[in-house]
Amino acid sequence: MKTITVHASSKYDILIENGIIDHCGDIIKKNTNAQKIAVITDDTVNDLYGERTENSLRKAGFDVVKFVFPHGESSKCADTLIKIYDFLCENGITRTDCLAALGGGVAGDITGFAAATFLRGMDFVQIPTTLLAQVDSSVGGKTAIDLKGGKNLVGAFKQPVCVICDPDVLRTLPPEIFSDGMGEVIKYGMIRDAELFDLIAEHNRETVWSVLEDIIAKCIGIKRDVVEADEFDTGERMILNFGHTLGHAIESYYHYETYSHGSAVAAGMCMMADRTCDKETAERLRKCVQAYDLPVSVPADIKELVPLCGKDKKRAGGQLRFIVCRNIGKAEIHTMQFDSFAAWMGK
Amino acid sequence: MKTITVHASSKYDILIENGIIDHCGDIIKKNTNAQKIAVITDDTVNDLYGERTENSLRKAGFDVVKFVFPHGESSKCADTLIKIYDFLCENGITRTDCLAALGGGVAGDITGFAAATFLRGMDFVQIPTTLLAQVDSSVGGKTAIDLKGGKNLVGAFKQPVCVICDPDVLRTLPPEIFSDGMGEVIKYGMIRDAELFDLIAEHNRETVWSVLEDIIAKCIGIKRDVVEADEFDTGERMILNFGHTLGHAIESYYHYETYSHGSAVAAGMCMMADRTCDKETAERLRKCVQAYDLPVSVPADIKELVPLCGKDKKRAGGQLRFIVCRNIGKAEIHTMQFDSFAAWMGK
Repeated sequence: MKTITVHASSKYDILIENGIIDHCGDIIKKNTNAQKIAVITDDTVNDLYGERTENSLRKAGFDVVKFVFPHGESSKCADTLIKIYDFLCENGITRTDCLAALGGGVAGDITGFAAATFLRGMDFVQIPTTLLAQVDSSVGGKTAIDLKGGKNLVGAFKQPVCVICDPDVLRTLPPEIFSDGMGEVIKYGMIRDAELFDLIAEHNRETVWSVLEDIIAKCIGIKRDVVEADEFDTGERMILNFGHTLGHAIESYYHYETYSHGSAVAAGMCMMADRTCDKETAERLRKCVQAYDLPVSVPADIKELVPLCGKDKKRAGGQLRFIVCRNIGKAEIHTMQFDSFAAWMGK
Repeated sequence: MKTITVHASSKYDILIENGIIDHCGDIIKKNTNAQKIAVITDDTVNDLYGERTENSLRKAGFDVVKFVFPHGESSKCADTLIKIYDFLCENGITRTDCLAALGGGVAGDITGFAAATFLRGMDFVQIPTTLLAQVDSSVGGKTAIDLKGGKNLVGAFKQPVCVICDPDVLRTLPPEIFSDGMGEVIKYGMIRDAELFDLIAEHNRETVWSVLEDIIAKCIGIKRDVVEADEFDTGERMILNFGHTLGHAIESYYHYETYSHGSAVAAGMCMMADRTCDKETAERLRKCVQAYDLPVSVPADIKELVPLCGKDKKRAGGQLRFIVCRNIGKAEIHTMQFDSFAAWMGK
């Protein structure tokens, strides 16, 4: 078992091992004083892993209740959140009990936000079941829901008491959801670790399983390092946004339908690399992205994407901050007036 | 002008002065880098103080937008909160802007929670316009909304960047709302400050105006001291709950209609004092409570109230924690099995 300890405002462990989901109860028992656990999950994940999770929790002595919501990003909304709150009330959950997020980013984000706010804060654990959630949203303490006006507009910083990552559960992911996670995995190599990038680039979507546990641990380690240095996202943590300025614009332009987050980030990274890297580096990134069935560009004209860049929290006072990797393994934060950015991208 | 500085997870000032509301813009300017302020208020307060507040904010150079909700506790709900979020989106509020809570506890609690969670946190200021909000909910960083299942069940700890208390604005309060605040004011004397209690007891609802600025500052000072010692409400802060265990039960028994919070707390304090103080002390408290037109008891049988005690966050693992003042000016935290508490109260 690989253990990565995160020293944020509270300290917690991320545990990574094939098959670990069947031991989640014992692990959680060591990390909370709760008697009762409310599992929050979606219908798809519930069918696949709900019973195994509950069995392990009950075997460890927990009283277990479960809330199941329809899968998909559209559930990460105020309406689901209020249903979760009401469910917690009806089931007599107290602030010494614990929530468990079982699923992808939607389950993790909404459960984390519920845990941050129900009774003004209670324990929660993450059992991420997508690659993206394992390497990204399970680390860093960012929780959120979407509003009509945009994604992740309401949220809180809340650290879990532990995170349980089982790479085996990724085998049931649809291929495009697995690829989606690889978009963020490639990003970690690009911003911080040339060796990790080499390892990813040596493989492709079929062969990567043999090194996946290692890759997941390395990605989590990088995110841990960045988050520890900047828990509340005021500076260096921004390097995690490589590919995201254009990526968010792509997601938004296609109404969050055509391109998944990881696909949009992959294309965003390649489009940025074309403008900032030498030809060879840009080509290495493109090849790697393609090996995992991810797009290197999108049909939309750059002039139509640019106005959508930074329509979120990253734009303040007319300025846009975005990330540039000139070489593999190293990221820089750039700040530009939005107008200059638009002109530069439009070239 | 009286200034009380609070050293919580962030440091901020509470400023108390008659007429200060007309200078709120300049004061807020010194405490935030925001360009734009969203004032959140209810319709009653808006009619009385909306224009004066906005004028002062605009004079200080702020861009001002305003969200007005219907007055009353029923607005402190998820529905209003989501409307506030959507309003902030539609008005392009960024995380470097600022919210201003203008009103009583409802405005303060819901605005504070919105500020804690919109874009994962932004500045907010409190301009409390009820006595209760000035001495209680404006200090301590507790923010919340109600659920169908109970009051304040969802919330966050969030400190304002400053609090502006104008005792003059209390003159437009309906008499029963002013009395409501006096319930908490008397509580401060009981738990911490025999001299403050004497000052309150020397006066009544008609004569208290001459010493009100002083009383408000003393109450805020006590709450500041208690909150600084226990920001996240894990121990000593509980002494602020004197009268509240029965008080909450009274509010709940009468469906939050017959008794206001301060009235219920006043009756709760007297009922607890009857069981724990000598006759003379209990009588002094009763007389003081009556001088401010507050109830010393309620018609409901104690046996019907007890089951409602501790139906909130204060009950954990079958145990109930509640506050006892044997003498004026000194509070103790008691812990009892709920069954023992019920038997003891029923005597």
